[in-house]
Amino acid sequence: MDKNEGKIEVLRVEEQEDQDQVVNPWQVSSKGKIDYDKLIDQFGCQRLDTSLIDRVQRLTGRPPHVFLRRGVFFAHRDFGEILDAYERGEKFYLYTGRGPSSEALHLGHLVPFMFTKYLQDAFKVPLVIQLTDDEKCMWKNLSIEESQRLARENAKDIIACGFDITKTFIFSDFDYVGGAFYKNMVKVAKCVTYNKVVGIFGFTGEDHIGKVSFPPVQAVPSFPSSFPHLFSGKDHLRCLIPCAIDQDPYFRMTRDVAPRIGYHKPALIESLFFPALQGETGKMSASDTSSAIYVTDSGKVIKDKVNKYAFSGGRETIELHRKLGANLEVDIPVKYLSFFLDDDAELERIKKEYGAGRMLTGEVKQILTRVLTEMVERHQRARAAVTDEMVDAFMAVRPLPHMFN
Amino acid sequence: MDKNEGKIEVLRVEEQEDQDQVVNPWQVSSKGKIDYDKLIDQFGCQRLDTSLIDRVQRLTGRPPHVFLRRGVFFAHRDFGEILDAYERGEKFYLYTGRGPSSEALHLGHLVPFMFTKYLQDAFKVPLVIQLTDDEKCMWKNLSIEESQRLARENAKDIIACGFDITKTFIFSDFDYVGGAFYKNMVKVAKCVTYNKVVGIFGFTGEDHIGKVSFPPVQAVPSFPSSFPHLFSGKDHLRCLIPCAIDQDPYFRMTRDVAPRIGYHKPALIESLFFPALQGETGKMSASDTSSAIYVTDSGKVIKDKVNKYAFSGGRETIELHRKLGANLEVDIPVKYLSFFLDDDAELERIKKEYGAGRMLTGEVKQILTRVLTEMVERHQRARAAVTDEMVDAFMAVRPLPHMFN
Repeated sequence: MDKNEGKIEVLRVEEQEDQDQVVNPWQVSSKGKIDYDKLIDQFGCQRLDTSLIDRVQRLTGRPPHVFLRRGVFFAHRDFGEILDAYERGEKFYLYTGRGPSSEALHLGHLVPFMFTKYLQDAFKVPLVIQLTDDEKCMWKNLSIEESQRLARENAKDIIACGFDITKTFIFSDFDYVGGAFYKNMVKVAKCVTYNKVVGIFGFTGEDHIGKVSFPPVQAVPSFPSSFPHLFSGKDHLRCLIPCAIDQDPYFRMTRDVAPRIGYHKPALIESLFFPALQGETGKMSASDTSSAIYVTDSGKVIKDKVNKYAFSGGRETIELHRKLGANLEVDIPVKYLSFFLDDDAELERIKKEYGAGRMLTGEVKQILTRVLTEMVERHQRARAAVTDEMVDAFMAVRPLPHMFN
Repeated sequence: MDKNEGKIEVLRVEEQEDQDQVVNPWQVSSKGKIDYDKLIDQFGCQRLDTSLIDRVQRLTGRPPHVFLRRGVFFAHRDFGEILDAYERGEKFYLYTGRGPSSEALHLGHLVPFMFTKYLQDAFKVPLVIQLTDDEKCMWKNLSIEESQRLARENAKDIIACGFDITKTFIFSDFDYVGGAFYKNMVKVAKCVTYNKVVGIFGFTGEDHIGKVSFPPVQAVPSFPSSFPHLFSGKDHLRCLIPCAIDQDPYFRMTRDVAPRIGYHKPALIESLFFPALQGETGKMSASDTSSAIYVTDSGKVIKDKVNKYAFSGGRETIELHRKLGANLEVDIPVKYLSFFLDDDAELERIKKEYGAGRMLTGEVKQILTRVLTEMVERHQRARAAVTDEMVDAFMAVRPLPHMFN
């Protein structure tokens, strides 16, 4: 049990709005930089400290992922209990997802999937990936057909991240809601009042009831009984959810309900937001193409976007820069490199040289362009190799007999 | 289009509560007798007049059902349009349902099914029967398992009413929600605000979100595309819903939404409530066994209940009764006979003799006991012949190739 659970866990949106930042699954905004420490306090989750990261390394025999070393995944709920159970020889499963609202993913969208792939490989555990086409149909006013088409397109990008088909089940809500999954939705819905979802998500009376009905849909993949073809007879399997911290409200609700319906609370491991090119005040916008690098961007486009839009912490003149050094706190090229440049020594060298004014913004942007282009081109090659048959295979409702091997 | 549709159609519960009677799917109460004329005005439906009943007779070549002749089904929405379409050679389908909250049905529960069977036979049309086990699980706090068990038990009583298995699909929500059905639920939910369901159904902020989520579940069997195994490619098939008038709020909502999502509004044909033995002020209660005759009651129990509880319009003394005659307006034995005694001449004779004081309450109760015992024993024999295999067969998701023959 987290220390801050219970009343404090379910923060009312009204209280949030009095403050300088608003973070919920549909809105991330702040007056300045997101204050993640404050968010941890508000949400009632825990900071992911180095002792937990060291345990991951010891238990899996692998170096911790760059997103752990650099604090990209920075908060958690009950991650320690997952590791305790794993250490006792108990398995768990991973659950993550995506709302398919756009054709092409940007780099921020890849962050949870890159990290989830690492967790799957390191712990050798099964994974369920929910595509919330129903949610996007309701929030973005897309047709059902268009939401489902985007779900399949996004599934290709997700598969391109390298998930193991023998351990991974991808599903679209429009296809999969029903049966055991629907029964769990009803169980959850019975435990959550309208006032409570208003408190958690900030719905109003003029919002349609599809929105009010949706939170149980995102809640129930946390329970193994929602997947009888995978986890029949394994009702006590624990679930770990890697996600960005804006999804925390769903799982606060889920954790509140879980013990009342006889299930384990899902554990969470939560990331920072990937910053927009223009600077670190929130999430990137899928609708503003200049705010993000997309996985469909060419090397030329990446180079142009980095050079033109990536907010620089360099000084106004070369003389001033040589004298003061770059402001690394606000520099987007350095932030991006801290996500995607795996070489710790090289990153340290860049930060040191750039911070001392010996390296110029142009040089850092050149390195970033190379790193991103390599990564995006690798993704594009992997995605091009994903066939419709592979999508069907990942999305087939089937047992995964070797999912724990 | 009904004359009174639009704003007036969606009557706010608050307005209802200011008045002398409250009728919604979970509550029927009134200070005196239910004022059905007022209800028609409030709800904005139409009275079922003799010209429509004559048309039914002419189009089907059958005498109208006793429930039509006696005004048990007394109100409608767009029933004339169904007959127009039928006359042009277009088919339609029937949709009715039951919330499985109790083991044994009472006679009031049989009324819509007896009438629906007549409609199926007379018009030779397919029928879908929804068992809302999810609703009862959420409202009555039954477990999922118990709701599903009751759904199957109730399905046996429904099948015992004589439905044609080549034209009838019975489904439980817990089993059937998903796929095309879920897609229609989302389409409906997108069109209905929270304020609107509060207006129609009277939910409060302390009600759980399962209640808020449920109305689309009862709405979507009105649309043929919810049943691709039955009506694939027949998206414009019209739907006729026989039900008691307390279900009207669901279908006011459904009719409001239908044109916005490209579907026909379902037509309705709506019945009075079957009165409790103690008198005609509302629906019978499934939890008060002395208020109703159950289909499981023995002849002895029926006789005892009729003699002991059936509210009599007879006078206090034989002398007074001979002089004034029975008050037929409040007499439950006569009301019950008007539902279940098919012989018009015999009913008229009883009403005349009893109303004139020449017949005593005891004699009328004896006739009623005989009529009910015959009917209930016939039902019990039919139900005893319903096997689990027959339930499975009616509930199988299958095409019905001869459903319009």
